[in-house]
Amino acid sequence: MALGREALESEVERLCATARWCYGRGWAPATSGNFSVRVSDGPTQRLFITPSGLDKGTVTPAHLLEIDQEGQALKGSGKPSAETGLHLVIYRARPETGAILHVHTVWNTLISGRYAGKEFVPIAGYEILKGLAGVISHEHVERVPLIENTQDYSVLSSKLEDVLGKNPEAHGVLLSRHGLYTWGQSVADARRHLEALEFLFEVEVRRMGGQ
Amino acid sequence: MALGREALESEVERLCATARWCYGRGWAPATSGNFSVRVSDGPTQRLFITPSGLDKGTVTPAHLLEIDQEGQALKGSGKPSAETGLHLVIYRARPETGAILHVHTVWNTLISGRYAGKEFVPIAGYEILKGLAGVISHEHVERVPLIENTQDYSVLSSKLEDVLGKNPEAHGVLLSRHGLYTWGQSVADARRHLEALEFLFEVEVRRMGGQ
Amino acid sequence: MALGREALESEVERLCATARWCYGRGWAPATSGNFSVRVSDGPTQRLFITPSGLDKGTVTPAHLLEIDQEGQALKGSGKPSAETGLHLVIYRARPETGAILHVHTVWNTLISGRYAGKEFVPIAGYEILKGLAGVISHEHVERVPLIENTQDYSVLSSKLEDVLGKNPEAHGVLLSRHGLYTWGQSVADARRHLEALEFLFEVEVRRMGGQ
Amino acid sequence: MALGREALESEVERLCATARWCYGRGWAPATSGNFSVRVSDGPTQRLFITPSGLDKGTVTPAHLLEIDQEGQALKGSGKPSAETGLHLVIYRARPETGAILHVHTVWNTLISGRYAGKEFVPIAGYEILKGLAGVISHEHVERVPLIENTQDYSVLSSKLEDVLGKNPEAHGVLLSRHGLYTWGQSVADARRHLEALEFLFEVEVRRMGGQ
Repeated sequence: MALGREALESEVERLCATARWCYGRGWAPATSGNFSVRVSDGPTQRLFITPSGLDKGTVTPAHLLEIDQEGQALKGSGKPSAETGLHLVIYRARPETGAILHVHTVWNTLISGRYAGKEFVPIAGYEILKGLAGVISHEHVERVPLIENTQDYSVLSSKLEDVLGKNPEAHGVLLSRHGLYTWGQSVADARRHLEALEFLFEVEVRRMGGQ
Repeated sequence: MALGREALESEVERLCATARWCYGRGWAPATSGNFSVRVSDGPTQRLFITPSGLDKGTVTPAHLLEIDQEGQALKGSGKPSAETGLHLVIYRARPETGAILHVHTVWNTLISGRYAGKEFVPIAGYEILKGLAGVISHEHVERVPLIENTQDYSVLSSKLEDVLGKNPEAHGVLLSRHGLYTWGQSVADARRHLEALEFLFEVEVRRMGGQ
Repeated sequence: MALGREALESEVERLCATARWCYGRGWAPATSGNFSVRVSDGPTQRLFITPSGLDKGTVTPAHLLEIDQEGQALKGSGKPSAETGLHLVIYRARPETGAILHVHTVWNTLISGRYAGKEFVPIAGYEILKGLAGVISHEHVERVPLIENTQDYSVLSSKLEDVLGKNPEAHGVLLSRHGLYTWGQSVADARRHLEALEFLFEVEVRRMGGQ
Repeated sequence: MALGREALESEVERLCATARWCYGRGWAPATSGNFSVRVSDGPTQRLFITPSGLDKGTVTPAHLLEIDQEGQALKGSGKPSAETGLHLVIYRARPETGAILHVHTVWNTLISGRYAGKEFVPIAGYEILKGLAGVISHEHVERVPLIENTQDYSVLSSKLEDVLGKNPEAHGVLLSRHGLYTWGQSVADARRHLEALEFLFEVEVRRMGGQ
């Protein structure tokens, strides 16, 4: 998005509000999760992203790091999260993306564990799928790609790049027993995707029983 | 309801407060759900309804569309939701209805899935049933009609008209893996029905086990 | 309790705050639940109780009915709840009681259904039992008497009187698929009992599986 | 921690805010739970701890007791909790600890019941484990020592001292069907551990099914 100064500030504030809201729902416990927006400034693109180790219940715009598309710091003194590279992969693979939300929730952790070893989590038949951009029917089958977790972030980056290439329609990616990445053209879009996917993860895990 | 200006404004504000409250409980995620009131102005009736795609956590009276009984816009610039027609069906079939609430919740999604293919979800034996207008005993059997979901809203409208005609005592209707419609003479009545039905859906799904 | 005017007002305000808090937790949905305090004024005793049909999320002292020990209205214009008689039974059977809380929760509804036909719900082995007045060990067995629900309030009153007589140590009574009555010397005591019992109901139902 | 006056007041306020937050989540019901910080004042160490029987939803710095390392009161008029001795054991065994949080939650109660008779609850494979100090991979196996509950606090103190000695890497200890003790160098660290462990307890109990 090419945003004027005021619109940029609003979008950054919306990102922080969304991070605090996620924390309040228990979706970013123990300083987990990270959140970013991308803005265009002429030919240049700038990213604002939450730093490592920050309590997401207290995020304000002043906490955010400003980085360029290679992940080099432009402003801000915090330490970039190890997962910053994953944000960069998504922004490169999805040029229209303006915001990325990454959360650790009980239900996305459970569903990614349930499907361990599979390539994706399939979800179909629910009206709320229409909360995902471009989906116009409950008969849509959403396949959420599932990547095995690792602490080797270069491996994780390659895998992520790979699944994004192979799943051009995906609205999110799960890291196994780790969390969800979802995105959108704006913070509002990304948050709508987050709410839809998390609702569906909870419904599916409960439907499958035992939880 | 025939309401004076002040009473009308209060009722519209109560509708918005109820929408925001539903969002806060996770009952209208990802811009889902829609909410309306009907007011009489002499022989004319006017409806105020939430527009399509609005985040229900932020609804204020200024967001609402004002439409007539055929669904024609009287005021407001948002896009009417595809489900506006379902509101109109209910208002026609239930002349005493002054407010309609439509929500997507984990528990109504699960119970509608459990009873897939059945004509209704039966609920009996609970004291909280007395929260439904006209119900005076826990021994009452509430049959919540269940309609198969479709993206063809003219089909959905006919089916809804049909089940309302056949179930004159119903306090709500479920769309399969989609959500609940409930209503009442006022926003307060509709909200009481909503709270009672959602409580019962949760209890019943948990009682049946596995969730 | 013999209370001065200021202490009385505080206790009444605490009762209302507790009712609103219960509503916020989903423990008094659809205008269900009722709440009372008893105060001594010389030889006379006065009760303040929530009226029938009131949204418990909005209770303020001005909403409360003031009644005497026979249930006759002293002040207030609302309609006494049909369950006012049950409050009177408890106040008579437990002379030290200063406050009574009655709530409809998912977990007390489920546990009362699980033990349908039994005389009580037994709970033992939990540290939180020490939140109940007089209990000093987790090894304590709390037997929560269980009464079959009926709309005949004179039958319900007799049964309640009976179980209170037979269970002098009980801190609460369950009505089957209806709700919990609990009490204490003050609103704070009654609320402590409520929190302890509801925590235990949830743990027990989850422990027994399937929910 | 050696803290100046202002830093000390902030840390005490953070402790109280954390206690109120725990209450809000249902993690300290019925006046359960207790919370403390330790501060260094030259060679002397002082502890601030919540008193017995206090509603944790209302804790402010003025409520806290100030005690020395032997548990002798320095200031404050409340009654020290019976569990104060357990705090002292942890502070002695973990010299770097600046804050201790003790909570009673539905999920820690359930998981401690599930593993009754075992020496510890093992948790592995989750990214959120990295919320625990010093843990750098989801492959880490966290063993949360489990102590059988008893009302004999001298027995409990010895057992606690014993498991802390044998498990130098532990970030928390469970008392069976009672609650969790966790700690950290600061309130923020202890809270991060609390959030990570409680998230994992919920995920594990739900994963094992039946709840």
